[in-house]
Amino acid sequence: MSLQGTYDPQNIFAQIIRGDAPCYTLYEDEDVLAFLDLFPQSYGHSLVIPKRSAARNILDVDPEALCKVMRVVQRLTAVLVEELQPDGVQVAQFNGAPAGQTVFHLHMHIVPRYSGQGLAIHAAQKGDPLELEKLQARLLQRLNG
Amino acid sequence: MSLQGTYDPQNIFAQIIRGDAPCYTLYEDEDVLAFLDLFPQSYGHSLVIPKRSAARNILDVDPEALCKVMRVVQRLTAVLVEELQPDGVQVAQFNGAPAGQTVFHLHMHIVPRYSGQGLAIHAAQKGDPLELEKLQARLLQRLNG
Repeated sequence: MSLQGTYDPQNIFAQIIRGDAPCYTLYEDEDVLAFLDLFPQSYGHSLVIPKRSAARNILDVDPEALCKVMRVVQRLTAVLVEELQPDGVQVAQFNGAPAGQTVFHLHMHIVPRYSGQGLAIHAAQKGDPLELEKLQARLLQRLNG
Repeated sequence: MSLQGTYDPQNIFAQIIRGDAPCYTLYEDEDVLAFLDLFPQSYGHSLVIPKRSAARNILDVDPEALCKVMRVVQRLTAVLVEELQPDGVQVAQFNGAPAGQTVFHLHMHIVPRYSGQGLAIHAAQKGDPLELEKLQARLLQRLNG
């Protein structure tokens, strides 16, 4: 997939936004959805996406929608830091397959980093559903507490 | 350096903002500065920083300042794509040394990716000044053209 192209409304994140596919939701409002990555590169790996901007990447996202996404990225990063106490956090956004993008709906990765622990390969190994569920519960409690 | 801490006004990006250290400027307004990374991980590696928010990382940046930074990230990414025609672009922001942060003033990396080319190690090898100057001229022409 190149950087230019048409938005595919059947991509998995579009399905999640429509409620046609499940996710471990962490936060949702009119404009933004945040949820756990199903193929986590580290413990707490989360994604934040715009709901109303049919954008493949940063080139075609509505700037206001991007701002709203970043506010949630900021808030969720703080929650991840408080709850999971990682040693660092990487925020990343990939544009185009050669940059590591695998789903062509704009998304921000929030990847907690723990000293001495490398990262799992992107989009390679599915997380354990039970562990993801427990993690979701912890983070929701912190988010809403 | 942990995620919590005090902002050091002597960090290199604070010096650049004050005009006490040079940089290859690509864009500047009241709130945001964009310039070439001196240790590029790929051809066109650029940085975008807030000028008026003394923020170490995403936890302590003013949300409005972050929005303004993202607008410039978006615009500069488009310019990099037009001018350098990479196959992809990674946008990344590191929080804390264990996440790869080396300068403790919030900054967004824009890293063009070219198929078949890996990345140079972060903050390892200084770019050739002549090449950076030529690249700056190309990008400024595209930005202002």
